Amino acid sequence: MKSSSTDGENRASADGTGTDRLEAFSDAVMAIAVTILVLEFKVPEGPPEATEWRLEHGLAAQWPSYVAYAMSFVVLGLTWASHHRVFRYINRVDWRFLLLNLLFLMVVAFVPYPTALVAKYLASETGRSIAVTFYGGVMTAFAMTYNALWWYASAGGRLLVPDVDPEAVRRVTRQFAVALIGYAVTTGVAFFQPVLSLVLFVAMTVFSAIAPAIARQTPGASRGDPSLRSG
Amino acid sequence: MKSSSTDGENRASADGTGTDRLEAFSDAVMAIAVTILVLEFKVPEGPPEATEWRLEHGLAAQWPSYVAYAMSFVVLGLTWASHHRVFRYINRVDWRFLLLNLLFLMVVAFVPYPTALVAKYLASETGRSIAVTFYGGVMTAFAMTYNALWWYASAGGRLLVPDVDPEAVRRVTRQFAVALIGYAVTTGVAFFQPVLSLVLFVAMTVFSAIAPAIARQTPGASRGDPSLRSG
Amino acid sequence: MKSSSTDGENRASADGTGTDRLEAFSDAVMAIAVTILVLEFKVPEGPPEATEWRLEHGLAAQWPSYVAYAMSFVVLGLTWASHHRVFRYINRVDWRFLLLNLLFLMVVAFVPYPTALVAKYLASETGRSIAVTFYGGVMTAFAMTYNALWWYASAGGRLLVPDVDPEAVRRVTRQFAVALIGYAVTTGVAFFQPVLSLVLFVAMTVFSAIAPAIARQTPGASRGDPSLRSG
Amino acid sequence: MKSSSTDGENRASADGTGTDRLEAFSDAVMAIAVTILVLEFKVPEGPPEATEWRLEHGLAAQWPSYVAYAMSFVVLGLTWASHHRVFRYINRVDWRFLLLNLLFLMVVAFVPYPTALVAKYLASETGRSIAVTFYGGVMTAFAMTYNALWWYASAGGRLLVPDVDPEAVRRVTRQFAVALIGYAVTTGVAFFQPVLSLVLFVAMTVFSAIAPAIARQTPGASRGDPSLRSG
Repeated sequence: MKSSSTDGENRASADGTGTDRLEAFSDAVMAIAVTILVLEFKVPEGPPEATEWRLEHGLAAQWPSYVAYAMSFVVLGLTWASHHRVFRYINRVDWRFLLLNLLFLMVVAFVPYPTALVAKYLASETGRSIAVTFYGGVMTAFAMTYNALWWYASAGGRLLVPDVDPEAVRRVTRQFAVALIGYAVTTGVAFFQPVLSLVLFVAMTVFSAIAPAIARQTPGASRGDPSLRSG
Repeated sequence: MKSSSTDGENRASADGTGTDRLEAFSDAVMAIAVTILVLEFKVPEGPPEATEWRLEHGLAAQWPSYVAYAMSFVVLGLTWASHHRVFRYINRVDWRFLLLNLLFLMVVAFVPYPTALVAKYLASETGRSIAVTFYGGVMTAFAMTYNALWWYASAGGRLLVPDVDPEAVRRVTRQFAVALIGYAVTTGVAFFQPVLSLVLFVAMTVFSAIAPAIARQTPGASRGDPSLRSG
Repeated sequence: MKSSSTDGENRASADGTGTDRLEAFSDAVMAIAVTILVLEFKVPEGPPEATEWRLEHGLAAQWPSYVAYAMSFVVLGLTWASHHRVFRYINRVDWRFLLLNLLFLMVVAFVPYPTALVAKYLASETGRSIAVTFYGGVMTAFAMTYNALWWYASAGGRLLVPDVDPEAVRRVTRQFAVALIGYAVTTGVAFFQPVLSLVLFVAMTVFSAIAPAIARQTPGASRGDPSLRSG
Repeated sequence: MKSSSTDGENRASADGTGTDRLEAFSDAVMAIAVTILVLEFKVPEGPPEATEWRLEHGLAAQWPSYVAYAMSFVVLGLTWASHHRVFRYINRVDWRFLLLNLLFLMVVAFVPYPTALVAKYLASETGRSIAVTFYGGVMTAFAMTYNALWWYASAGGRLLVPDVDPEAVRRVTRQFAVALIGYAVTTGVAFFQPVLSLVLFVAMTVFSAIAPAIARQTPGASRGDPSLRSG
């Protein structure tokens, strides 16, 4: 919450409260999407006639589920943090921004499905490349809607806070574009080299998690870029 | 949040905080309903003996799920935005309003089920017309409870903010009534022409999404109608 | 939210903010429980060999699900409203109150299961009485934990706001006790007369929904009892 | 909420609002995780040919589900309360803290899966020891990430409020370390003595629930330790 005016309505656009509810709704969707990822896990059961089957093998055979869960959780968790970063720059929202945000949330809320798909087919010779390509496609759509959100808000400073540092805005634009290109390329790789593609997804995720922590080491870096402060 | 008085209790009805918790609860239900839509998706699996089955065909055969997901997501997302619009006009709530809102949320929270139904039967000759009719019936019930909510609050300005623009109130009343009629007619069509009905549902949804963006082009339109500002 | 002090920590117990987070957490659990009720619904499918089976019969055969959904939704929704009523009287919370509230939420969050049970067995001769008894048992536990919460908070005015009207407190105590007795008796009936018991559950739920609306007709009734104002 | 400045951005780190959104997101994840625990319950059904099968036996045979549900609910509920306790001491968050919190939430959100596993295999001779060991492993990971969160925040007072009582900080550090050791030891026991291990888990959970209630009896104990006030 950025303010608490008592005559909210009129000052809404002026003082920034205009973004509060949109942020709260987006936060809720991201929190729910991240928490229902666990529902992809099915308790392993042996085939009815199996006397040799053992639970530890069933649990070990679920390794693709663990990989998919951790990857999607971290991607969505970092997106939550990043979404706040974007909103620090945004002063008010209009109807188009709201629609773009809705489109973005539609992809966010969809992530549990490709996650379950990868969990199911990562260990399967025949389905793996399609499953990872599908996952990558959703991730690319995700990055596209996120970029669109930012482009719309930042173009000509349309919805930004008045005194924003233009260099910081350019930096965010650049980072988001790089992420989009990264996801698109990795998805292209997925069809031919699903395992390599997945390794690239994990590497990109880990990088985007630790890069800010490293950048933060440099004093002064925390001036112009709110991303260096938590959501 | 419209105010932040420290002696909340007594000023609650006076300054409008009276609607805060109801809005927060409604927001939560809508955010959850929208996010659990994804649970309708089942990871496709070939029949046990199928060696010819391929995952890409399984995913392509799920097209009704994608249609149903996107449609319900956008309808619920726009409803969230619209619900905020309504609450901008509302100053306080009473018990009957609370019950009507509960009824409305009961239909909102039910939407994932008809969505799953359409996803399952849209591609089936025999089930399609029933599934789309059922979906339409829920959407019509949804519009009815939403209209009832607004009628109750706005009749004689019962729960509205004191200085509300009567023209804006009439405009909302008219828009909601049109939506209700639209849903009812489209549902009637569904039994005989399910595909046409679905096309109409999608068209109505797209229209209600982009209409405000177009209206907003006209300067001055943003005066009397809070819907032009985001939730 | 009852206040927004900037030096929150110290004034927390004094001005009542001490209950904010507990209320928010409880609200979230109730909103989620109410919204995942829909997950009990399974899209009907005919038996593999059935050419006679029709979707409309499948949907009609789900009537126990609709009954169970509506009943649990309204009970939980009214509980949400009532929980707010209780918290209007409560000034601060202590650890034991927090534990009692946790116990209460454990029962609230469990409600979707007995709801699914009733949905499944209401139309079954053999399972009906057990299913409704189980449902009633959970409802009785629910009323018990809710009463315990209130007893603990109100006994000797332990956690209440300083200047609370003692008559209003007694009225809440009485209402809650009546509800508990009602649920317990109805549960006892369930084993022998499941249908009658269910009718009583529905009647109690409808009564607790409309009673405040009727009471509110009487002017002056809204003075001493915050329940007359919405959550 | 600890403050409500209107020029939020700059004063964010100074006055403590910096932790608000992180707390809200964490609260949401914990509320959702706790509420979807119920989804592990499957309505019991007799085998197709069974005429002898009775619902009450099916419900009674689910006792491991009730045990697992209650245990995980209380553990997560107490963690929610405890998480607030930690955040009372924390003034601001940085990127690394955010990552650690994300890791912590990843384990929190995972809890429904080991809960379902224990529910399924607790009554099974062959799977029990693995299921309880797996559950214990997740609980130990949970305690590890929680300890890491606290260590990072409290080391050298890095993220703590300026005037925090060092003795209170040490007390929290000690309590958390004891819990971690307790979970690790209990998990070690699980492989050989799953039932004993589960009894220890329950005992630890009950103890951590009632210990603060007993401690609170002692006057003065409520001075230095915010844990004695509710979340």
